[in-house]
Amino acid sequence: MAEAEATRIMAEATRIMVGVNQSTIKGYPHASISSRGAFEWTLQKIVRSNTSGFKLLFLHVQVPDEDGFDDMDSIFASPDDFKRMERRDKARGLHLLEYFVNRCHEVGISCEAWIRKGDPKEVICHEVKRVQPDLLVVGSRGLGPFQRVFVGTVSEFCAKHAECPVITIKRRADEAPQDPVDD
Amino acid sequence: MAEAEATRIMAEATRIMVGVNQSTIKGYPHASISSRGAFEWTLQKIVRSNTSGFKLLFLHVQVPDEDGFDDMDSIFASPDDFKRMERRDKARGLHLLEYFVNRCHEVGISCEAWIRKGDPKEVICHEVKRVQPDLLVVGSRGLGPFQRVFVGTVSEFCAKHAECPVITIKRRADEAPQDPVDD
Repeated sequence: MAEAEATRIMAEATRIMVGVNQSTIKGYPHASISSRGAFEWTLQKIVRSNTSGFKLLFLHVQVPDEDGFDDMDSIFASPDDFKRMERRDKARGLHLLEYFVNRCHEVGISCEAWIRKGDPKEVICHEVKRVQPDLLVVGSRGLGPFQRVFVGTVSEFCAKHAECPVITIKRRADEAPQDPVDD
Repeated sequence: MAEAEATRIMAEATRIMVGVNQSTIKGYPHASISSRGAFEWTLQKIVRSNTSGFKLLFLHVQVPDEDGFDDMDSIFASPDDFKRMERRDKARGLHLLEYFVNRCHEVGISCEAWIRKGDPKEVICHEVKRVQPDLLVVGSRGLGPFQRVFVGTVSEFCAKHAECPVITIKRRADEAPQDPVDD
């Protein structure tokens, strides 16, 4: 590579997309354990003190069985009830992104965050294609093959299909909740 | 995490293990295209200007069908002939490591490099367990499923089994040689 080209590339920040989701643990506030783990790992091990060299792009994909986990308690009697639900889901997604954007602000690293709806693994790969980050970081619960059959793994799909390098950060064993399928 | 703990971690360099191998192209000098790609990507996108924040650990695993690709031309008549072959293989391995260590010296990043013998995928995972890097980077030819059946992929195995986060860097399409199985 010519030196001028190398300098130009160095001048542009490394853009790291981080897939984030909410905790599945009822009453547990905000980001999932593995999302937070993946984010903090990225800060500590990759970004380090070089905050101007990186930009973080947070993507949250909203999916019915994740964001509507307590729908069992709701009664729908009018079209407005559905709108209210939608607003609540949206508020939750915003709350999640706010957590990560605030952390970036504290650390002094530039970032962007947005929400999409759909199947997380498909949407993440689609957004990678659209946004073309240098790197995708996703957290993983680090489940065994038996557990994976039932819950699927977004990280495995992305590692295979995303059109950029992918790092999967497994949740630390000492951070796993009582039921390892929770996160 | 307590602030003192975070500071202590920041003070230690992020240790990135890079699996490197020789080119399979006869007459092609030294490092494989995908090894060089993975290394240069790591410098440009992760290390950037923060050379004191990282340490690179180069592991080359010597395997008979890779390092002895021109054994067809050799005639063995005495035990010494075999010793000579071994020395030659070792010299090739050293030459490979020298390339990466020299590049690190130019860039000003600290490094270590060593050679092991055996099945690359098994040995890499074993060395990850022993050395405990923060991250493993491996290059990949980015072959399709049909080609993979015949050549196997070290990167897929490591991504699944290595006990640390793994980044697989696919070879750029414009760098692929005429036969994509070559590297």
